[in-house]
Amino acid sequence: MSEAIDYQYIGTRPVRPDGIEKVTGRAKFGADEMLPGMLHGKVLRSPHAHARVLSVDTSEAEQIPGVLAVVTSADFEHTRTGSPGLKRFAENLIAGEKVLYHGHAVAAVAALTSTAAQAGVDAIRVEYEPIESVMDALDAMREDAPILHNDMFTAGLDSEPTKPSNISRKQTIAKGDIQQGFKEADYVIKRVFTTPMVHQGYIEPHACTANFQENGKATVWCCTQGHFDVRNSTARMMGMDMGDLKVTASEIGGGFGGKTTIYLEPLALKLSQKTRRPVRMVMSRDEVFRATGPASGSVNTIKIGCKKDGTITAMYAHLVYEAGAYPGSPVGAGSMCIFAPYDVENILIEGFDVVVNRPRVAAYRAPGAPQSMYAGESVIDELAELIGMDPIDFRLKNAATEGTQAAYGPRFQAIGLRECLEAAKVHPNYQRELQKDEGRGVAVGFWFNGGNQSSAEVHITDSGMVMVVEGSPDIGGSRASMALMAAETLQVPYDRVRVNIADTDSTGYCATTGGSRTTFATGLAVVKACESVIAELRARAARTWGLDVDQVEWRDGTAFPVPGVNVETDPLTLRNLARGAARTGGPISGRASLNAQGPGPAFSVNMSDVRVDRETGSVTVLNFTSIQDAGTAIHPDYVEGQMQGGAVQGIGWALNEEYIYDEQGILDNPGFLDYRIPVCSDVPMIDTQIVEVPNPNHPYGVRGCGETPIVAPLAAIGNAVSRSLGIRMTELPMSPPKVLEAIANHDKNAS
Amino acid sequence: MSEAIDYQYIGTRPVRPDGIEKVTGRAKFGADEMLPGMLHGKVLRSPHAHARVLSVDTSEAEQIPGVLAVVTSADFEHTRTGSPGLKRFAENLIAGEKVLYHGHAVAAVAALTSTAAQAGVDAIRVEYEPIESVMDALDAMREDAPILHNDMFTAGLDSEPTKPSNISRKQTIAKGDIQQGFKEADYVIKRVFTTPMVHQGYIEPHACTANFQENGKATVWCCTQGHFDVRNSTARMMGMDMGDLKVTASEIGGGFGGKTTIYLEPLALKLSQKTRRPVRMVMSRDEVFRATGPASGSVNTIKIGCKKDGTITAMYAHLVYEAGAYPGSPVGAGSMCIFAPYDVENILIEGFDVVVNRPRVAAYRAPGAPQSMYAGESVIDELAELIGMDPIDFRLKNAATEGTQAAYGPRFQAIGLRECLEAAKVHPNYQRELQKDEGRGVAVGFWFNGGNQSSAEVHITDSGMVMVVEGSPDIGGSRASMALMAAETLQVPYDRVRVNIADTDSTGYCATTGGSRTTFATGLAVVKACESVIAELRARAARTWGLDVDQVEWRDGTAFPVPGVNVETDPLTLRNLARGAARTGGPISGRASLNAQGPGPAFSVNMSDVRVDRETGSVTVLNFTSIQDAGTAIHPDYVEGQMQGGAVQGIGWALNEEYIYDEQGILDNPGFLDYRIPVCSDVPMIDTQIVEVPNPNHPYGVRGCGETPIVAPLAAIGNAVSRSLGIRMTELPMSPPKVLEAIANHDKNAS
Repeated sequence: MSEAIDYQYIGTRPVRPDGIEKVTGRAKFGADEMLPGMLHGKVLRSPHAHARVLSVDTSEAEQIPGVLAVVTSADFEHTRTGSPGLKRFAENLIAGEKVLYHGHAVAAVAALTSTAAQAGVDAIRVEYEPIESVMDALDAMREDAPILHNDMFTAGLDSEPTKPSNISRKQTIAKGDIQQGFKEADYVIKRVFTTPMVHQGYIEPHACTANFQENGKATVWCCTQGHFDVRNSTARMMGMDMGDLKVTASEIGGGFGGKTTIYLEPLALKLSQKTRRPVRMVMSRDEVFRATGPASGSVNTIKIGCKKDGTITAMYAHLVYEAGAYPGSPVGAGSMCIFAPYDVENILIEGFDVVVNRPRVAAYRAPGAPQSMYAGESVIDELAELIGMDPIDFRLKNAATEGTQAAYGPRFQAIGLRECLEAAKVHPNYQRELQKDEGRGVAVGFWFNGGNQSSAEVHITDSGMVMVVEGSPDIGGSRASMALMAAETLQVPYDRVRVNIADTDSTGYCATTGGSRTTFATGLAVVKACESVIAELRARAARTWGLDVDQVEWRDGTAFPVPGVNVETDPLTLRNLARGAARTGGPISGRASLNAQGPGPAFSVNMSDVRVDRETGSVTVLNFTSIQDAGTAIHPDYVEGQMQGGAVQGIGWALNEEYIYDEQGILDNPGFLDYRIPVCSDVPMIDTQIVEVPNPNHPYGVRGCGETPIVAPLAAIGNAVSRSLGIRMTELPMSPPKVLEAIANHDKNAS
Repeated sequence: MSEAIDYQYIGTRPVRPDGIEKVTGRAKFGADEMLPGMLHGKVLRSPHAHARVLSVDTSEAEQIPGVLAVVTSADFEHTRTGSPGLKRFAENLIAGEKVLYHGHAVAAVAALTSTAAQAGVDAIRVEYEPIESVMDALDAMREDAPILHNDMFTAGLDSEPTKPSNISRKQTIAKGDIQQGFKEADYVIKRVFTTPMVHQGYIEPHACTANFQENGKATVWCCTQGHFDVRNSTARMMGMDMGDLKVTASEIGGGFGGKTTIYLEPLALKLSQKTRRPVRMVMSRDEVFRATGPASGSVNTIKIGCKKDGTITAMYAHLVYEAGAYPGSPVGAGSMCIFAPYDVENILIEGFDVVVNRPRVAAYRAPGAPQSMYAGESVIDELAELIGMDPIDFRLKNAATEGTQAAYGPRFQAIGLRECLEAAKVHPNYQRELQKDEGRGVAVGFWFNGGNQSSAEVHITDSGMVMVVEGSPDIGGSRASMALMAAETLQVPYDRVRVNIADTDSTGYCATTGGSRTTFATGLAVVKACESVIAELRARAARTWGLDVDQVEWRDGTAFPVPGVNVETDPLTLRNLARGAARTGGPISGRASLNAQGPGPAFSVNMSDVRVDRETGSVTVLNFTSIQDAGTAIHPDYVEGQMQGGAVQGIGWALNEEYIYDEQGILDNPGFLDYRIPVCSDVPMIDTQIVEVPNPNHPYGVRGCGETPIVAPLAAIGNAVSRSLGIRMTELPMSPPKVLEAIANHDKNAS
């Protein structure tokens, strides 16, 4: 661990800026925008998993009192002649010739009340011709599988495909000589793992209010992780110039990647265009489960070989990810992450993106990484067990470090994997003595973190308040971290800084909040905007004193003449300079835009002790420890919160959560009663330990911390259950029926 | 007139950006903001013109079902111990120990419905002790007048005042030797003129929605000419830091200066703080008349002397302006403007600001100038008549020009008075032959125009749209003029520019829209922000081509290598550069803040022919010609609209509008039925002619054009009526009773 830098504000834990507003119920979320004359919109959704849409008759619906408009795919005609990407994107939002999953939107209705809108939805007559559905990736890859898209051919193959396929693409990451690597191995383990489709489980359903005006301009209010990208994709769906659509991001009740794309916005906006009134649409929980973007289910085959001394010689992965009904699973990111923690010569990773009759997947924290690393870290654990080596030592022996050439591309700069492993090894939870039926699992997590474009402005009020303006929705505390970085840069107290997430008409472009990019990239823009403000403040002081700007320096939130230069007045504080701004040149402001390069990869080590009840198959998580390199933890409470939240979501993914479809492809559990996310009583206190190895590409060393926490828990819990049972678990969730089945199979094979 | 510059966009007349939104009823005005759980607020107002408030009992009101809170001045206790300025400002918004005018706010109620709020207002018991009121300035100046403020002593006197007075201050502008000037005169005319208190008559009543949150931060939505200054003054009233209050300016249904200050905002916000719910308040028309800020009534004595050849030798003015209940009439501006058109050696102007039991005045287009210049231009006209000189020639003989040292301070740079007078002289309307009972009036108008602080940001979308962000509410077409200046500077088509007036949390400070400052000052900020965008665009092109930035030039909206430098690719358009922005450094943006210096004074010449019916006293305006130097007319339609609107308002002021109080100081005509503003059938088509003498202190020569149009009509109409009757009219409005009375008095004196 590198030595700590003595920051004044960074690393402190002030109260969150949005806290009081949220606990008092005053914050405005996605469904909280009201406009004069506003209508209510509802969506008609497919009752079939796969069917041709022969006709949609809206005439009866249009006669329902209070119903003012109905939209169907015919209202988005221009998207069909656009790029294949736009066509598919559009068809996911409102089905064209076919419906491809249970819940797929077919039409939408706007009415004076939501009751009338529902009556309108119920009165739409759709003639379907059901087609055989295909619900999982391996079935979908078969030669004789029902084909979802007749115009989709597999990309990335060695030879040109001759017929349509459900495999949208194959992609490969290779390093060294995989065959040679396995030849050098003393031990090789190969296993197949499956993970279910799971949902992010954000509490707030998708919601928006759209207002299309007769001048061709429009506004959208919605809960999103990226209102600029909502603007861009909604405008594209509407055939508008993005500059004519203003999008405002509401407060967000959870997103975890699931709110990086759009569902309702173009429907609401088209309904608004037809009715010439604002339209609000709010999903039910049922709709969120059936028709938004969950995380890919996967079937992953892993083969790893090592020498007797623990040196890994070869790592192979064959990753098959369900994309849902349209291509675009995160198998690419899953491929990048799976073996990134290891400095190994010979690596081959093959990834397959496969469409099935399920909702199109979306991002879910470190999208793609939990699935692949669950598989990879399970085999690592089994190898360590096999050669009788401590699982942390085994990883330390092979750990990537500064200078390691990662298979997915970069040569690592300073990274904190070794530091995390060493912290785990000496952690009290790792010393605890295990009791009967208990098992301990260890796993490593990884996410490369994002950079991308961000902008920020900083304005100083006459009262000397620092107003930061940026365009990255705050999904995990970014307002606090921006304020801390601004306070640190300007050297003004944290409580004199305010951060506003402005609408798309009011500030510069910021890419969507996700991939753990915001504290890094938007933070960098804020720091640079503050630096431009400091330049301005020095210029104002220089003007006041009749000095050159390089005769003035900024420290402790105050302009001083540089040593050797004397002035008659006192040093000028931010407040002094703000009050005099009109006389020295007008309002004091600064700004910056950038495309941030060099995000710092973040490694984690998770460990957990579990007890398995062999009679009921129930797993109790006794403790859980999350250790992670955050670079610099700008606001440690939030970092710990991210680590704890990711752990809980990972525990849910490992033990309970799954989409359950019946034989017809109908979702059986679209609600929190049947789709079981962990509640407080299901999990122990999540212990956290932040490791800080600063990212050399950020002035304060930020890496980003929101993704990595969900990566390792699946394997940590899996390895703990496996070690407790003495049986390698390869299928998630490890719910009681699956555990009992594994025990029964094992006993049967043993007998 | 200087030679015209050949602009590509400036000077064109594109459709207004807000037009369709407004004519379709989709624009959101002050009363159109709704928030979840919103309450309705109403104000209890004084039934007396002047009274002590002995007690306010709100207990009964608080028991009314649906009433959730009542506020009184006790809720703004901290304002009483603040500066005298803050104390008076606060007391105008909610009365303290005394009420000072009929309609003065005493308490406010928030309730679930407006009916309940009104019931609450009706249930408040106030014990008043009426005091003698004083309704006009001359009465208020008497030694024995009832005193409004026991702590107010006249400022600006030669000796220290010994007792409180209703005269808040005397101010003097002097140049040369006034006595000597009158000695040199062959003719001297001295007259006293009175003008009534009039209202701006904006169609939209004041309205706001306020939301105070438990975290100490708040939002206000309101119709205003300056949301940054609403922020600052409302925060001050609330004892908040201005950085904690976000104010959003709605579309505005007219302001004309009357929406440069606040009335409801702190009351709504305090009610919101007490109820913990959002509160909306909307004035009735009655409240707008009784309790917002009209224009000062005045009594102005003018004495001007000239030689036989028309040379003016001395000009004296004694201006008495009603401030309403609290000091602050625009007598200062009236003093600056009155003689500014004339290059005269000897000038003395004495101005008096006097409080009376009427609502505190606010700005009304060119505040203070119409009253004083009505008086001054009437005497000028009479002098011209007296010496038998054409009134335009008389003014040309004495006209200020470049280099003239104005009595109020500046030495004029290029100005357009002479050009306007010459244009008037050759105008067809000046050649028309007058019929029986018709008279022609000519008058000159003047306004110095404002500068002040402004900020602007410019962002380029990926689609190449130019998004201008600024903070000056658009009350007269500034979005169009900003877009035109941005289009001209960047050399991109006007329809590729969008202008957004952002809230106070989202953009840099802009001073209130008023004083004809916005097109000049905010326009300057927009031009400079565009220039910084051009610098960025050149840098991006240079990066793309591997050149230095000074090897790239920007013209026709495109980056070209400078002559002599060759590159292999085509020139890069804005759209090209926008699309590639992510690869060349991130989003493309620029910004500027400034305190604009050097606004250009704007002169006008108005002329009108009227016919007076000597039997009924009715005046018919036969034609009206408005000629004005706009510097450069950025969007001539809007300039002409300003000229026409000012003319109509001025005609109303001249002929019909007045506040009518009864003996108890109760306003008799607080509604548009009895307060008679001109309707279409009252006025002819207003002919306009824009003169363009560019302001040398603005890159496109902008002067500002919104104030001057209302200055000359009062005197132009007055002079026409006087010449028609052969009787000098000295009292506005020249309504039928006044005209008949003048005829009767004249006949009586003649007989």
